[in-house]
Amino acid sequence: MTLPSPKRPPVSLEAAEAIAKRWPTPFHLYDEAEIRRRVRELQRAFAWNRGFREYFAVKATPNPTLLGILAGEGCGADCSSFAELVLADRVGLRGHDLMFSSNATPIEDYRLAIDLGAILNLDDISHIPVLDGLLETWPETVSLRFNPGGVFAVTTDIMDNPGEAKYGLTRPQLTAAVGQLLERGVKRIGLHAFLVSNTLAEAYYPKLAELLFGTAVELQRETGCDIAFINLSGGIGIPYRETEPAVDIAAVGAGVEAAFAKILSPAGMGDVAIFLELGRWLLAPAGCLIARVLHLKDTHRRYAGLDACAANLMRPAMYGAYHHITVLGREDAPRDHVYDVTGGLCENNDKFAIQRELPELRPGDLVCIHDTGAHGHAMGYNYNGKLRSAEILLTCDGRARLIRRAERLEDYFATLGISGLPGDLDSYRERAGLRTAADLDSDPLQTEPLVLPE
Amino acid sequence: MTLPSPKRPPVSLEAAEAIAKRWPTPFHLYDEAEIRRRVRELQRAFAWNRGFREYFAVKATPNPTLLGILAGEGCGADCSSFAELVLADRVGLRGHDLMFSSNATPIEDYRLAIDLGAILNLDDISHIPVLDGLLETWPETVSLRFNPGGVFAVTTDIMDNPGEAKYGLTRPQLTAAVGQLLERGVKRIGLHAFLVSNTLAEAYYPKLAELLFGTAVELQRETGCDIAFINLSGGIGIPYRETEPAVDIAAVGAGVEAAFAKILSPAGMGDVAIFLELGRWLLAPAGCLIARVLHLKDTHRRYAGLDACAANLMRPAMYGAYHHITVLGREDAPRDHVYDVTGGLCENNDKFAIQRELPELRPGDLVCIHDTGAHGHAMGYNYNGKLRSAEILLTCDGRARLIRRAERLEDYFATLGISGLPGDLDSYRERAGLRTAADLDSDPLQTEPLVLPE
Repeated sequence: MTLPSPKRPPVSLEAAEAIAKRWPTPFHLYDEAEIRRRVRELQRAFAWNRGFREYFAVKATPNPTLLGILAGEGCGADCSSFAELVLADRVGLRGHDLMFSSNATPIEDYRLAIDLGAILNLDDISHIPVLDGLLETWPETVSLRFNPGGVFAVTTDIMDNPGEAKYGLTRPQLTAAVGQLLERGVKRIGLHAFLVSNTLAEAYYPKLAELLFGTAVELQRETGCDIAFINLSGGIGIPYRETEPAVDIAAVGAGVEAAFAKILSPAGMGDVAIFLELGRWLLAPAGCLIARVLHLKDTHRRYAGLDACAANLMRPAMYGAYHHITVLGREDAPRDHVYDVTGGLCENNDKFAIQRELPELRPGDLVCIHDTGAHGHAMGYNYNGKLRSAEILLTCDGRARLIRRAERLEDYFATLGISGLPGDLDSYRERAGLRTAADLDSDPLQTEPLVLPE
Repeated sequence: MTLPSPKRPPVSLEAAEAIAKRWPTPFHLYDEAEIRRRVRELQRAFAWNRGFREYFAVKATPNPTLLGILAGEGCGADCSSFAELVLADRVGLRGHDLMFSSNATPIEDYRLAIDLGAILNLDDISHIPVLDGLLETWPETVSLRFNPGGVFAVTTDIMDNPGEAKYGLTRPQLTAAVGQLLERGVKRIGLHAFLVSNTLAEAYYPKLAELLFGTAVELQRETGCDIAFINLSGGIGIPYRETEPAVDIAAVGAGVEAAFAKILSPAGMGDVAIFLELGRWLLAPAGCLIARVLHLKDTHRRYAGLDACAANLMRPAMYGAYHHITVLGREDAPRDHVYDVTGGLCENNDKFAIQRELPELRPGDLVCIHDTGAHGHAMGYNYNGKLRSAEILLTCDGRARLIRRAERLEDYFATLGISGLPGDLDSYRERAGLRTAADLDSDPLQTEPLVLPE
């Protein structure tokens, strides 16, 4: 574990105001330097493994610019749907750059994954006959997702219930599936499991690795199959609270290396590659949600209402998740006031923080909601007619670049047949003093980056 | 209470297959006759009140066709955002047809609500000085949202905690706010509260009415204000389980009438109008989600994977909510198998049902997930790159009419600048055997209704 450290916004108040002037709040802000730093730290931790590769879990942050940065650093993509496959392909990731891990999979998703040459990570043994009907010839390498069932305990207080999870094949099914794949000409098998979500326990990957390595040795002995890779998937968490220590990824890598040396190397399987599918660990701390205080309210509690809501960040509403909040320009001010920090949905779970100690807030203040770089914008919805926000990248050369434009009314109404729309939307915007369509950014590719104040 | 009754799909298997052939599953299906039946039942229950009006909670089901049906039956619209105001205006609802109830309200939303002449339902006393800066003159009628704080008990086992809810003004603030509004020339005051969500207790509205009626009498005596209406808002639930009795809305109406006769009439306030903002009670039972079984899986449990997921219906994932499921064509078959019914998200809470007794399922079966007519499609998201579904109306004359087209890849990628898109999307669809853009419905207004088999 590394020591807990205070969370700081990636920009000064002045820089954030400059961005907000160009692209109104709320917006998600990603830090390119931090993304590159984290992926390199990860790669160093697993450099002992020759075939190591991170397949970024696209679902966490499906943005082509961010995926492109990760691809440039050598990552592949873990895709779970048609749209994610398209996204990865546009970034230039294809063939074995792609892991396709899905469940209750539509046939068309499999067709596209096959066409792109993705590694197929089968969630169920019954997918084998389904793929018989789709594949002209089976690929050389196929992956299987394992679910050991029961309870998986990392430590006495960190465990999860794979036996209640929908994913993966049972242990007997694994052996049967490998047999069926070998009969079909498959040469190399991958093994995958995801057993605990968002854990700070450094023992998780080593423990999971021991399970998968042991299973791989068994499978190799039972069936004679060649194990190409072990995919430890995701699950490594980040400290959402300032008081929590961070996972030391180097220690995790060393733990997996020790398990590798203990189990795989002696079995003559020292050439097995380690794959990961981290999403949250890589990107969550490299992104934040910048929002403005619209409204302070003093009733049975004190409330601060933001211009962001669960449409921009659903984790607090869905999971009761904690996200740290700092006030821009008052990062070091005493936290001597208590607020419920809310969004504006007509839904009482739309609270970013409950009874949170913060510096005194004023309308117009900018706040930074930390660690939204994964499962943040990606989980946005349009409840209450709210529009999803822009995504902006702080580039390594000190600029702010629009990498996803904010949704507009045109997007919200696109699937509806409404007479006079979208033509009349500008009239509503004009009446409310908003920018009209011509003044809204329509394509991030056409939008000049903004040079930020020092 | 009315007796529990078995839930039946609104269409036969043959009709559902005919619809699915034209508009692929999954889709939300609404029953026009049932919508009209329910709104008329509601209006009968409150016919004793001369000014009675239901303002449909648009957030529950923001579809213009459905809103138009309700408007045709005499309902107004309860809007909470800019987009919802636009939607209601396009359906022809404006002026006092609109209730604008919002919190942490953006200035531009207030501007549009004012421009459309909506009744402003203020969530906080501090909105008064904000509106001073926006209004040329204050409207004659303004509504205030009340939060009594503490615990509100309907019965000993049905209660909620207004004291922890972000909404509304405290009791002392109500008096102060009425005074401030009268000083500003406001002539008539409305009073609003929402204290319990989704309750089956018939005593809720009468109990809430007693509180609000008593408060109205007090406010009238304290300030001399004229109380125009009491808005009991929403909160009446529906039986999501077959074993639950339904609320007898006539009994609810009679209970409110008794409270009215006891409190308001003797105070000389017999002309006060009763307003409601029901969403769920009106529409939830009039809609369902039709999905197809893609995949059966037998591991540590038995799983049925659907082509729908939490992107189409989030309530089970977010609240652990129960939705009844029937298998089309086997409505009366014995429920002698047990399944977890899942969507295909890489998110283990994406389960429509856990350990549910159902008839034996086969791939290709159509299932009806009941009571999705409110807070169903409206809460959809695009997590995992999933696209939100179409909405279809079963019309009173026996046709199926597309009232919202399904999202397409074009929509999913609209906010991103990706070179070559949307132009190249057809090539991906072609490779996967999907319909290309030219074959997809682009505008529900241009799409012929489908005549259904008997």
